[in-house]
Amino acid sequence: MKTPLTAVAVSCTLKPSPTSSSSDLLATQLLDALADHGVTGDLVRAVDLSLRPGVEKDMGGDDEWPQIRRRVLDADILVFVTPTWMGQHSSVAQRVLERLDAELGETDARGRPTLFDKVAIAGIVGNEDGAHHIAAILFQSLNDVGFTIPAQGSVYWNGEAMHTTDYKDLDETPEKVESAIGTATRNAAHLARLLKGQEYPAG
Amino acid sequence: MKTPLTAVAVSCTLKPSPTSSSSDLLATQLLDALADHGVTGDLVRAVDLSLRPGVEKDMGGDDEWPQIRRRVLDADILVFVTPTWMGQHSSVAQRVLERLDAELGETDARGRPTLFDKVAIAGIVGNEDGAHHIAAILFQSLNDVGFTIPAQGSVYWNGEAMHTTDYKDLDETPEKVESAIGTATRNAAHLARLLKGQEYPAG
Amino acid sequence: MKTPLTAVAVSCTLKPSPTSSSSDLLATQLLDALADHGVTGDLVRAVDLSLRPGVEKDMGGDDEWPQIRRRVLDADILVFVTPTWMGQHSSVAQRVLERLDAELGETDARGRPTLFDKVAIAGIVGNEDGAHHIAAILFQSLNDVGFTIPAQGSVYWNGEAMHTTDYKDLDETPEKVESAIGTATRNAAHLARLLKGQEYPAG
Amino acid sequence: MKTPLTAVAVSCTLKPSPTSSSSDLLATQLLDALADHGVTGDLVRAVDLSLRPGVEKDMGGDDEWPQIRRRVLDADILVFVTPTWMGQHSSVAQRVLERLDAELGETDARGRPTLFDKVAIAGIVGNEDGAHHIAAILFQSLNDVGFTIPAQGSVYWNGEAMHTTDYKDLDETPEKVESAIGTATRNAAHLARLLKGQEYPAG
Repeated sequence: MKTPLTAVAVSCTLKPSPTSSSSDLLATQLLDALADHGVTGDLVRAVDLSLRPGVEKDMGGDDEWPQIRRRVLDADILVFVTPTWMGQHSSVAQRVLERLDAELGETDARGRPTLFDKVAIAGIVGNEDGAHHIAAILFQSLNDVGFTIPAQGSVYWNGEAMHTTDYKDLDETPEKVESAIGTATRNAAHLARLLKGQEYPAG
Repeated sequence: MKTPLTAVAVSCTLKPSPTSSSSDLLATQLLDALADHGVTGDLVRAVDLSLRPGVEKDMGGDDEWPQIRRRVLDADILVFVTPTWMGQHSSVAQRVLERLDAELGETDARGRPTLFDKVAIAGIVGNEDGAHHIAAILFQSLNDVGFTIPAQGSVYWNGEAMHTTDYKDLDETPEKVESAIGTATRNAAHLARLLKGQEYPAG
Repeated sequence: MKTPLTAVAVSCTLKPSPTSSSSDLLATQLLDALADHGVTGDLVRAVDLSLRPGVEKDMGGDDEWPQIRRRVLDADILVFVTPTWMGQHSSVAQRVLERLDAELGETDARGRPTLFDKVAIAGIVGNEDGAHHIAAILFQSLNDVGFTIPAQGSVYWNGEAMHTTDYKDLDETPEKVESAIGTATRNAAHLARLLKGQEYPAG
Repeated sequence: MKTPLTAVAVSCTLKPSPTSSSSDLLATQLLDALADHGVTGDLVRAVDLSLRPGVEKDMGGDDEWPQIRRRVLDADILVFVTPTWMGQHSSVAQRVLERLDAELGETDARGRPTLFDKVAIAGIVGNEDGAHHIAAILFQSLNDVGFTIPAQGSVYWNGEAMHTTDYKDLDETPEKVESAIGTATRNAAHLARLLKGQEYPAG
């Protein structure tokens, strides 16, 4: 019997609910695939919350980041999904990364960063070009704050150069995307389970 | 007598007014240097306005992007300044880029993109590492929507790896930064004047 | 009568001659389009020459960089074309950028960098995703050493995510690529002519 | 008693032996720190070998990539170190990444990519700015071909903006770099040991 694990998927679409979103779709597909590996989790659409600019864990006032923060801290796996605009991750995605930056100053009882032992995977959708660049930025930023990146931990889809089709409007999920979802989630679950069983040592 | 030019500097600090800001400082220095070349302009701190997520020129509701948009469209030179967080441009900077994306669909009476003939320069400040990467992203994004980039059109400062000093807290502006400010603004003014005199041809 | 201009296209394919190359194809298309604007030029395939690692203008021995360097210094417009591997510009492209780095230390009789007044445009081809990222890196690197980037100065093609078709194997050039070639070359010629007529001032 | 592990450090300096190299220094420091965790390994300076352009595992002729390839395949941990030129990883580093691209087509007896279960960490040195960008690119590229990235798996040093000091010429290793070396190597050894004990499952 495998150790149960939890995940949170943060979708960084620019579109508030209830508008349909390609990022939400990919995030949901990643959560569904994780479920096959004993991981339960759910989705938060970041743009629906008031995430104040800044790099503190709570910016006060109407800041709703602490809600997302709590869910990230409680989860074993972070599924970070962003759309592509002008070849870049969304401003909402960058806001989430900035807020995670505060975790660099946080440590657990053994003096280790609070995000150690957690695994992150990246999902990127776009009409066209940008995914490798964004995966790179997400991996660097999330790794800097303490996440571990499993082998082949990114999943992306975009269309041909300068095309305008949305991922959510495809007739079906392309086979290569299905395959990448399978690999990334299988590896994420395996790795998170290993790290939950044997945490990174303290320095 | 040189043709008078105008500039708008958009500072993308995460800190609302009236907190002091390194981005605002560099933006002001760039505007001051542009003034030596017959360019008048002023500064907008983007985080002080409500910039709705999305890629339309007006997202409706309390969206204050149209104010910045108008100033960008009225200016000959855009001075785009961002802080560095986790090696990236700020979420506020990405929001501004996303909103400029709408200009891709806008054309003037001659069928040319609305931002053609305008020149953009980049300013980047940070405690540490990230500036080349950010300059690259700013140049690509701003160029895609129609801005022209003058020779050596970026100015940056950051400290040694993993240091924490802010640009605004330096005893004085480093000589190499002064020199870069001189070059970028001199070239921006020259180029904007040329393009104002002889616009890009229509296709 | 327009001022005649010259261009050099540097193709950074990994494939030595005479193998056919998508980068060479796009470079040739860009040169052909420049010809419509009074620009004559030709193509160099960088991988056919021995470009020694290092950042001096001549690394000695069998170094053939000085041949390319001379052609770049003689041209008004640089057409820089690279394939995409793993979402990145090729090692050959990076080698060319590194060698151009030496120009940072070179100045003309008026004390200006040797590459000032020259215009650069970027061409990027790939089976899939990577072009915006590469355009960004090319613009930043080429701008740092002194090139000016005309409005909408990049042209790219890649296929849908994880597809494997080469640009050279398309039945015809996609309309959007044709259009981008037209815009980038028209703007490059206009800008190079302006700068040739009125050079950037000395500091 | 901990499982013995092996590492190979690939230094991507542009300088052939026996010239002293900051990349080699950091690579050596990383290997020394790994030794404290039961990892034995050694260093290869990629520029000393003839690495042909291309994306096959053996390009034939005088291609010496197969020597490095063998060492990477035999090691549990890859230490990938690059200098910074114009804010980018070196052309030698990009050549190594391109050659690793061939592994995407290689699988083991269980149908898994040949590089699964291996851990990679990144080392980046430079006079100035560029490290976050390069770490991002290395993580994305290495992760795509199958490496796993341990928490806080990058180590970098660069000086203040536009400064020219080399890492190898510092009086001593900065404390923050020492600390990062400790974290990255401790985490790499822990993770590689976990994955050696319990490999990623086949699909």
